Amino acid sequence: MTLTTFQGATGNSSFTAKAKSVQERLESSIPDYLRLPASILKNLPLDVTGIPESCGLLTSSELAITELDATTICQRIARGELSSVETVTAFGKRAAIAHQLTACLTDFFLEEGIAQAQELDAYYKREGKVIGPLHGLPISIKDFIPVKGRWLSAGFIGTLQVSEDDCDMTSILRQLGAVFYVKTNQPQGKMTMECHSFYARTVNPYNSKLSSGGSSGGEGALIALKGSCIGVGTDVGGSIRGPSAFCGIYGIRPTSLTTPMGGYVSSPAGQDGVHGSTGPMCRSAQDMAMFLHALSGADPYLLDPSLMPLSFDLPDLTQRKLRVGIMVHDQWITPHPPMLRALRMAREKLIAAPNVEVVEFEPYKHIYGYNLAVEMFFEDDGKTFGDMLEEGGEDATPLTEWIIQASPAIKDHDAIEMWNLHDKRDSFRRAYSDHWNRTGCDVVLCPPYPGVASQHDTAKYWGYTTIWNVLDYPGTVFPTGLTADPAIDVVPTSFISMSDADLEHHQLYAKDPQVYAGAPIALQLVTKRFGDGFLLAAQRIVEEIIKN
Amino acid sequence: MTLTTFQGATGNSSFTAKAKSVQERLESSIPDYLRLPASILKNLPLDVTGIPESCGLLTSSELAITELDATTICQRIARGELSSVETVTAFGKRAAIAHQLTACLTDFFLEEGIAQAQELDAYYKREGKVIGPLHGLPISIKDFIPVKGRWLSAGFIGTLQVSEDDCDMTSILRQLGAVFYVKTNQPQGKMTMECHSFYARTVNPYNSKLSSGGSSGGEGALIALKGSCIGVGTDVGGSIRGPSAFCGIYGIRPTSLTTPMGGYVSSPAGQDGVHGSTGPMCRSAQDMAMFLHALSGADPYLLDPSLMPLSFDLPDLTQRKLRVGIMVHDQWITPHPPMLRALRMAREKLIAAPNVEVVEFEPYKHIYGYNLAVEMFFEDDGKTFGDMLEEGGEDATPLTEWIIQASPAIKDHDAIEMWNLHDKRDSFRRAYSDHWNRTGCDVVLCPPYPGVASQHDTAKYWGYTTIWNVLDYPGTVFPTGLTADPAIDVVPTSFISMSDADLEHHQLYAKDPQVYAGAPIALQLVTKRFGDGFLLAAQRIVEEIIKN
Repeated sequence: MTLTTFQGATGNSSFTAKAKSVQERLESSIPDYLRLPASILKNLPLDVTGIPESCGLLTSSELAITELDATTICQRIARGELSSVETVTAFGKRAAIAHQLTACLTDFFLEEGIAQAQELDAYYKREGKVIGPLHGLPISIKDFIPVKGRWLSAGFIGTLQVSEDDCDMTSILRQLGAVFYVKTNQPQGKMTMECHSFYARTVNPYNSKLSSGGSSGGEGALIALKGSCIGVGTDVGGSIRGPSAFCGIYGIRPTSLTTPMGGYVSSPAGQDGVHGSTGPMCRSAQDMAMFLHALSGADPYLLDPSLMPLSFDLPDLTQRKLRVGIMVHDQWITPHPPMLRALRMAREKLIAAPNVEVVEFEPYKHIYGYNLAVEMFFEDDGKTFGDMLEEGGEDATPLTEWIIQASPAIKDHDAIEMWNLHDKRDSFRRAYSDHWNRTGCDVVLCPPYPGVASQHDTAKYWGYTTIWNVLDYPGTVFPTGLTADPAIDVVPTSFISMSDADLEHHQLYAKDPQVYAGAPIALQLVTKRFGDGFLLAAQRIVEEIIKN
Repeated sequence: MTLTTFQGATGNSSFTAKAKSVQERLESSIPDYLRLPASILKNLPLDVTGIPESCGLLTSSELAITELDATTICQRIARGELSSVETVTAFGKRAAIAHQLTACLTDFFLEEGIAQAQELDAYYKREGKVIGPLHGLPISIKDFIPVKGRWLSAGFIGTLQVSEDDCDMTSILRQLGAVFYVKTNQPQGKMTMECHSFYARTVNPYNSKLSSGGSSGGEGALIALKGSCIGVGTDVGGSIRGPSAFCGIYGIRPTSLTTPMGGYVSSPAGQDGVHGSTGPMCRSAQDMAMFLHALSGADPYLLDPSLMPLSFDLPDLTQRKLRVGIMVHDQWITPHPPMLRALRMAREKLIAAPNVEVVEFEPYKHIYGYNLAVEMFFEDDGKTFGDMLEEGGEDATPLTEWIIQASPAIKDHDAIEMWNLHDKRDSFRRAYSDHWNRTGCDVVLCPPYPGVASQHDTAKYWGYTTIWNVLDYPGTVFPTGLTADPAIDVVPTSFISMSDADLEHHQLYAKDPQVYAGAPIALQLVTKRFGDGFLLAAQRIVEEIIKN
């Protein structure tokens, strides 16, 4: 049944048997009435984004609902113009289709979602008001984030389990009125920039030869195909921003420890080197703010003592000039031609805008900071990963193998070595902050990845996102509206590489520009720690200028 | 010259020679006109707090100035009623006396302070306004906190150095108008609850048989003797609150990473297990708020990316009932009779107060949390401490020896063990927060230490303060106005110990209640993380009730 494109991780015979049963459980959860005909599945184009509309499984009303963003849906439900049941049904049906096209799901429980939606509709009818700001809104959830009674894993088959309870995030979202109906794929161990797990490989909806990104790649593909309007991802090295960029949607990695991760299944827990963060992936800029406002309004810091209170209020930036730094490359890996074109276009438009001042932003020791992050991710020399793989009889996927084996930064640490490493991190953060302060930038516009979506098993450099994780600067990714076009994005006649890795990365594009055709081009906007509200406001200004 | 009471840490011949030269450098910095006559020094009473007034070295005007708190001083200087030079001179002279009585200083540079004060007075005269909210205010600084051009150590003789620059804290305070004139003693490694370094042992001004507390014990003794109205301490296990309690002054450990520690000499740096904090030690409740407001007004988080913005604004609590939990003991160590008396008095008065609701606060696994903290302090099995001692030929002081040798929690850790340990910390924090939330308490009133100031080398349990460090709850200590009185604070006829350590602690008092006579009794008030402003407001209410 599974398309070869979606071939998941491999392992020993015990793994293979278990993976088969897991995949069958998942496939059998898609009811027959939502199955795409074999005629479609056997002849899938590289770009499957038109199929939900053309396949005939969705009514015109359902198609219309799934075009809406989360903010609009919440508003319409609150005004009684839309029911939760019809909304959840529409997105659930479309999610089933999206899954058959990209292998983006790990759990499908539309009936449970509809039952929850019925209760919410009944509440609305009875009380004449919504139960909370997310009343009736379907939200998709990344696999390793617990939803009560649903399947979960930490990205290894050996960690597969059914959640006994909601975690803080899903509990709060549920209290705010959200409805859950699907969980989404993530790569092995959640620590690669693509999405290749024991469930499957999630492919890019715009081009199945390309990755949906990782680790929140199931969310990326699902939301791009409008099988969800908003989902919850996590990001410790780029896992929200990478797949958002690859799939042409919006995503924000908030400053860490401001949004609730209590109850998330960490492997391993207790790491203080680089803190993860959790946030929305969605289809509009306003949805990022809407989600974060609703969440912070629930005061999660009162529940989870690791969190800091942060309002996410958007300041009024209309009365001032926004100082935007542009960073074209990080002095280590040169972005591919489509990304360079988007940056040129952005620079030109921003320079022409009266309310913006553009400066060139010089990166400060990005490869050093990136290597610190990678070293902190695997302070145990990858032993925990190895144990998890062994426990499930699971082979390391090519990218897991690569990150652990290929990185010179990864080694075993004792206490003093870890203290020294974290001290280096703190010194780097201070030096970077001093550097940033000297530039006077409000925000920095830069690539989220040195190109568009990667070819499978080639996303070997996370530096453009991970650098902001090690600094803990919030970052948002948004689509430019441009897509990769080999006719315009020609391979440069000469290329001076900044590193061996740069040359290798360059050749991925130079050898076959055509393979990237049609992939969305996204940009990343970042600001300093705790500037999340400012960032959301600035992103709207920058996007509006770029798209006008 | 040094009194035997003040005998500092010991070491090999190289250490002894260096320590002698260091002590001589310090002693020679006290000018002759500020030297107490031998007649006084040879016949020091146990309680030396009356000597600054009686010794004749201070004018009545200087005595009057040194009675003022920092807030009042700033107000008077701002109104032109007081000059910075006369203020700094008065406190500087009194600090020299305090040092001769308690060995509280590590550096004395009154002339430099006066020169700085002259510039500030000239500015005020020229501009007709203050340079900042701390204009002209003398502030004492703990030894390991850098002040440009002044001596500094991390509590080991091998780390002795002259600071090339101010750190963030002293740089900001200087910009706000503060004047520096002395640095203050801390114990070896800054990791004991007493104050015994290669400089000297700082004794308690109220009773030289007792400790001034640690690690910010020099500050404690100096401020209690009014040789400073406000000083800067640090606290990773109780180092602000312990000496504040022992010396009968005010102190607050703010939520960590809200006040600037950039540039502080950490040994070792890079520890993420329990974060230290820095804050004021002073002689009035309003001074804690004044200091923290002035500091946060300088937006230190823009300078130091490890910091979170926190306003320290005091909410208006007059329109509500304050729910105060009272915790008499932590189920591990029973407080000595003077402390129990203060708690009884406080409970009675709080119960009678119309604006307070009193509940019994049950401690939640305090010894477990305390042991986690101790394990995190020394994740390297104390190797770094050992290296520092060896480098300087320095012997471990009895309490250094005790903390590292006697604690079953201390052992070497690899990366996975450290992750597990920090995961236990996070789980404990969550469980404690859930517990606290269930009680509905706004604040908890508890002992800062299971007794009054300790006899030398006996302060072996920091649990009453350290538990709030591992939780990162802000805590403030304030004097009750009571002092230990063996005639009232009688040894109970029967004692049921909660632990072996409890029995040992009990016997310290039971064997000789008289030795504690006259020591101030302080209480500690704590609240949840980031509730610092709330805590400051609540402390005033609680103190007012207790003292009326």
